[in-house]
Amino acid sequence: MGNGFKGIVPDKVRHICCIGGGPIGAGWSAWFLGRGYQVSSYLHDPAEAASFRSLIDTAWVSLEAVGLGDGASKDNLRISHDLADAVAGAEFVQESAPESLQLKQALYRELCELTGEQVVLSSSTSGLMMTEIQAKCSSPQRTVVGHPFNPPYLLPLVEVVGGKRTAPEAVRWVTEFYRIAGKAPLVLPKETPGFIATRLQEAIWREALHMITEGEATPEDIDFAIVNGPGPRWAMMGPCLTYHMGGGEGGMAYCLEQFGPALKYPWSRLEAPELTPELFDQLVEGSDRLAADRDYTTLNKRRDEALVAISKVVRDTFGKAEN
Amino acid sequence: MGNGFKGIVPDKVRHICCIGGGPIGAGWSAWFLGRGYQVSSYLHDPAEAASFRSLIDTAWVSLEAVGLGDGASKDNLRISHDLADAVAGAEFVQESAPESLQLKQALYRELCELTGEQVVLSSSTSGLMMTEIQAKCSSPQRTVVGHPFNPPYLLPLVEVVGGKRTAPEAVRWVTEFYRIAGKAPLVLPKETPGFIATRLQEAIWREALHMITEGEATPEDIDFAIVNGPGPRWAMMGPCLTYHMGGGEGGMAYCLEQFGPALKYPWSRLEAPELTPELFDQLVEGSDRLAADRDYTTLNKRRDEALVAISKVVRDTFGKAEN
Repeated sequence: MGNGFKGIVPDKVRHICCIGGGPIGAGWSAWFLGRGYQVSSYLHDPAEAASFRSLIDTAWVSLEAVGLGDGASKDNLRISHDLADAVAGAEFVQESAPESLQLKQALYRELCELTGEQVVLSSSTSGLMMTEIQAKCSSPQRTVVGHPFNPPYLLPLVEVVGGKRTAPEAVRWVTEFYRIAGKAPLVLPKETPGFIATRLQEAIWREALHMITEGEATPEDIDFAIVNGPGPRWAMMGPCLTYHMGGGEGGMAYCLEQFGPALKYPWSRLEAPELTPELFDQLVEGSDRLAADRDYTTLNKRRDEALVAISKVVRDTFGKAEN
Repeated sequence: MGNGFKGIVPDKVRHICCIGGGPIGAGWSAWFLGRGYQVSSYLHDPAEAASFRSLIDTAWVSLEAVGLGDGASKDNLRISHDLADAVAGAEFVQESAPESLQLKQALYRELCELTGEQVVLSSSTSGLMMTEIQAKCSSPQRTVVGHPFNPPYLLPLVEVVGGKRTAPEAVRWVTEFYRIAGKAPLVLPKETPGFIATRLQEAIWREALHMITEGEATPEDIDFAIVNGPGPRWAMMGPCLTYHMGGGEGGMAYCLEQFGPALKYPWSRLEAPELTPELFDQLVEGSDRLAADRDYTTLNKRRDEALVAISKVVRDTFGKAEN
């Protein structure tokens, strides 16, 4: 639990420090600039400045297309190669340093010395646990994971979870702050390796690696199958709403009654858990909440409209012939 | 291997029989009608006709939006409740009957009696193996799996694989036919339970079920994570091209060098295979082919354009407020 935490009012935050000059650090810097914040970006190596600015410029094209916030300007960016200078005056720190536990432990110890205890320190780590990162901190109660998806200026998800010594108030604070800053925060029920989205991605990736190893598919087959099959649906719905719709008017309950036995089939190398009555109910109730007040006909109609438009978008942008 | 197979020239096919009145059978009927074919649809139960026609009408809205083929008309549909009548004159049969092995074995035995040996019989089965379905056939050499994704009139993927007694010529024939009919056929290297796309979907689904069971995520968390995170990317690229881009200028090779050790982490309940030099090379070479002549900067720019447009599409269609 750690000590308590008391931050400033989240919508009073104006000045953010982003640590890291790679695609994630630059992506966060671009996002916050696009929402109108003052951003100080710490780059460890002055040689990174050119590629960092190029990443910001690339992101800016999309941010303008999405719509900039009030006062947004690239002129609000300040690059620093001195950590104390970079964090001076910052009301929030988003850290995207390399994925090394030793490096992050030392960095968080230093950040705790350099910033006031009302400042939340949030890590973009995609795999390390905050319980370990915060091990050497003098004020661990304000350290959290805020894991984005690449590119952070276009994909809204931020997975939020604290470590053992993080204050619940800090998790609540950063969740509200991310929402105000235009992101889609997802608070994890518990500190789980790989969080949620990475675990789901990793499940696909590992099954794909097994298939390639066993000659069941080539890398091109894997990508072809996703893009021409389930991929476009995933832009708008996850597996729960997908199977809810797969059950037609009967929804998830009907789907589970029909396809429950398939969980025993060797359709993936991962064995499924038992489909207990509790799991059954959780899936049915969760899917009903996901469907909200959209009935089957409405969901179908909207899914189709979206798929038509998505296929056109992909053909005209990502898939277009070289020019 | 079975006997040889000799079909008519695939682009001379004009008349198709679609078996099944559910969303998959109706979806296939709609697709072929939209491409200008004559379609005879077999519905087991006359009571299905109304919902079948409603599915066709729903699909037609999207097919018009995507663009109809020459001569396409809903008037080219004939519904029959007599199997012999339904297949009379058909040059290709797409079967989407219920997922029961006993039912399909009997159906294929009958279809072999009712149709000439130049007619390919293709099953929409999502999980049964053609080796088993064709067990009671007098001419199994022309029986194949042609597994679509729902809705078949919008998602182009068709997974194609024969059984032990299927002629390789029949697999080649149906692959060419599907391509002519506007689908994206994917020939499986071997008969694998769950084929390719379903295995990848199932890997995510099973990991999700474990997470829900263990309290690591709710059903809503799972879907929220997909839709706001990796989902929109999957509309245009699978895991191979995603990780190729994750490696920046260094591509898949750099990505594997950085993240290879993560395959040992408990980031999914499925353990990964050994990252052997052979697998490493397959991934690098496959990803290079997927990237084709698009360099890192081009891929990034186009991915961003697509993500901006996809997020707008989803917001304006699937995600819009009720009206």
